[in-house]
Amino acid sequence: MQTPTVKIGLLGCGTVGTQVVRILQEQNADLSQRAGAKLELAGIAVRNLDSPRDAVVPKGLLTTDIDSVLDKSDLVIELMGGIEPARTVMLTALRRGITVVTGNKAVLAEYGPELYDAAAESSADLYFEAAVAGAIPVVYGLRESLAGDSINKVLGIVNGTTNYILDQMATQGWTYEEALAEAQRLGYAEADPTADVEGLDAGAKCAILASLAFHTRVSLKDVNITGITGVTAADIAAARLSGHVIKLIAVASREHTDSGQAVSVQVAPTLVPLKHPLASIFGAYNAVVVEAAEAGRLMFYGQGAGGAPTASAVLSDVVAGASHIAHGGGAPQESAYARLPILPAEKMVSRKQIRLRVIDQPGTLAEIAQIYQRGGVSISAVSQEGSTGAADSVALLLTTHAASEEAHANVLEQLKTCNAVKEVTAVMRVEED
Amino acid sequence: MQTPTVKIGLLGCGTVGTQVVRILQEQNADLSQRAGAKLELAGIAVRNLDSPRDAVVPKGLLTTDIDSVLDKSDLVIELMGGIEPARTVMLTALRRGITVVTGNKAVLAEYGPELYDAAAESSADLYFEAAVAGAIPVVYGLRESLAGDSINKVLGIVNGTTNYILDQMATQGWTYEEALAEAQRLGYAEADPTADVEGLDAGAKCAILASLAFHTRVSLKDVNITGITGVTAADIAAARLSGHVIKLIAVASREHTDSGQAVSVQVAPTLVPLKHPLASIFGAYNAVVVEAAEAGRLMFYGQGAGGAPTASAVLSDVVAGASHIAHGGGAPQESAYARLPILPAEKMVSRKQIRLRVIDQPGTLAEIAQIYQRGGVSISAVSQEGSTGAADSVALLLTTHAASEEAHANVLEQLKTCNAVKEVTAVMRVEED
Repeated sequence: MQTPTVKIGLLGCGTVGTQVVRILQEQNADLSQRAGAKLELAGIAVRNLDSPRDAVVPKGLLTTDIDSVLDKSDLVIELMGGIEPARTVMLTALRRGITVVTGNKAVLAEYGPELYDAAAESSADLYFEAAVAGAIPVVYGLRESLAGDSINKVLGIVNGTTNYILDQMATQGWTYEEALAEAQRLGYAEADPTADVEGLDAGAKCAILASLAFHTRVSLKDVNITGITGVTAADIAAARLSGHVIKLIAVASREHTDSGQAVSVQVAPTLVPLKHPLASIFGAYNAVVVEAAEAGRLMFYGQGAGGAPTASAVLSDVVAGASHIAHGGGAPQESAYARLPILPAEKMVSRKQIRLRVIDQPGTLAEIAQIYQRGGVSISAVSQEGSTGAADSVALLLTTHAASEEAHANVLEQLKTCNAVKEVTAVMRVEED
Repeated sequence: MQTPTVKIGLLGCGTVGTQVVRILQEQNADLSQRAGAKLELAGIAVRNLDSPRDAVVPKGLLTTDIDSVLDKSDLVIELMGGIEPARTVMLTALRRGITVVTGNKAVLAEYGPELYDAAAESSADLYFEAAVAGAIPVVYGLRESLAGDSINKVLGIVNGTTNYILDQMATQGWTYEEALAEAQRLGYAEADPTADVEGLDAGAKCAILASLAFHTRVSLKDVNITGITGVTAADIAAARLSGHVIKLIAVASREHTDSGQAVSVQVAPTLVPLKHPLASIFGAYNAVVVEAAEAGRLMFYGQGAGGAPTASAVLSDVVAGASHIAHGGGAPQESAYARLPILPAEKMVSRKQIRLRVIDQPGTLAEIAQIYQRGGVSISAVSQEGSTGAADSVALLLTTHAASEEAHANVLEQLKTCNAVKEVTAVMRVEED
């Protein structure tokens, strides 16, 4: 039997694209063997033919004409970034029966449902391991390996820039501004760091993870996002005192409401207990924890970004896609048969830790406890945090059980109008042990 | 289009088998949807019909006739354990075109090559996620997700019993015997703990991981195994002083020799640096680190044993297998096209830490350094460990660079005949940072 050939088109040739070209050349025999098909790079679409490029990129394959690359390809690798023309090109390719491998989290988070549907209606597949957490095979884990199980929660550290900044604040005692400046100097953060520090990058990945875990169409706009710009050195210090470390956590969970199951998707700076496996993920590493009904707690850990790690994830998708093209069958099973409703932001639930400055007099704690009771939020622990420096007030550290954002907000409103409370110093999400 | 049915036979119905039956019933709609085929339990072969069983097991499906179950099945789940008749039954099934899902590490470690070949020659697949590290999807990770990459090293904590014992020695200050007794009392260790504490269980898993990572047939007998029975409280204390923790590490690596690439496979108590991701894996959890050329360092973490987690891994294989049966194509690609030679035990390489008691006089260190130099083993660090209690001797802690077992053994022979050396207190493998 002759080995079939799978023709590959590359759309975009920046850092990751160049690494894809290099590995596809260096490891061609091995990759082709694993795919059961000869992998042949047929064309590379770029925006500007004159941009300087690494010597590994074959000049003869370069073109600015995306359509001409689609015409030649059985499978395209989309690494253009941004929404358009990436979205339209991917839809066109899928509708023409061309398998798409992409690392584009922005398009998936915003237009994922449209793309999934286009793939489901065509004979082509859509792969996107590289769009979440770089080299970490969490998409595979959720899509294939846990196919025999029911997932209750997915949570992770999926943005290296914010993880670096929070690490430096904790270990060097830097302010947020100092840590951000250092991250920018080292090239870990962009000149405009908004997408990272405001949690939008993590939010996009959270939407993709939630879609996979719960077989439900989740978009970026469904995610309740808080970035790290409000995290202070005092928050970091208070976290340490209570046995936690602050991480930007993306969390998608299956919630049981009066009207049935629903999905909650949040990104927020979170107090993570020191013994939690996510507490010891440092620097550029990413990690995703999956909590499944039968398998229990699993964690996937690895480099979340970088040209070669991301290219490695792209090529594992290329091998899977080429194998399907050459040998048929077994398309990825992410068709949305669950379609759980997504909770509105105010109904999403979490535990919170609240730091308060209160008047140092008998009855204060009882008054605060009553406000919580009336608000339907139950308190799991209270401790006095130490002196506030002021003679007439004390600092109180209060941790709640899980409650909705709405309920938390109502209680906070009440606390602010309560005479015994001088200040609500900070409110932060707390992760379970 | 009518949904095809895949008939499933279960061979063996102990703890894991019972959980498989339960989940297959409870989640049947979901699992069938994901497989794209109706999953139907057709028969259950057991040794003794009269054994007490959980109520979830349908009595009408029980039989002692294995052949009658094969006759009814498109896919069999082998959970009999032990070598025979499991090996023969699996070979028969594969040759008859019946897909096999197994959790049997003993058969795979010993007769893996025979089974892989039988699967390659038939139209049936062989799946074995549950045979390594329980619920952790490391087999999938190695087989599918890293298909676009080249693996240099796989190392892990793959035996919960020994991990528990070493943990308790480190945190409770217990002796090996005390920790083993407690593990037996809690049911974590068997009355005859040989397979765990002598490293045979870890060795079997190491052979399977090495086979997958390097596309090479590795059997249990190829693995250079040291168990934990020789680990002392003094070893644990010395490890802590040098910034390490002792773990039973299974490690398979690609080595570059004068005659080309070769595979090294070892299981040994190992000094793991505290910052290494494997250093903070405690108790019943298992973890496997994969070091790949492009993806960098990845880690897979989760429960390594237990009925439900292992059943979850079995069912993810069942879904994959049923999907292939119903929709064709894409059989797992573990055919042995690399076939690297396996290093003999004496050629396998590692760094070692050596604790010595030496005479406290000028020139001693120079003499020892000369022995190492002549033996071709280079020293990376030396420190004085503190008093030995005896007036005329000091304790020395010596760490080497990587060298072969043979070279290490020769140097140790020389040290033992050297007048300046009063005692070689301990020798232990050291993991890289």
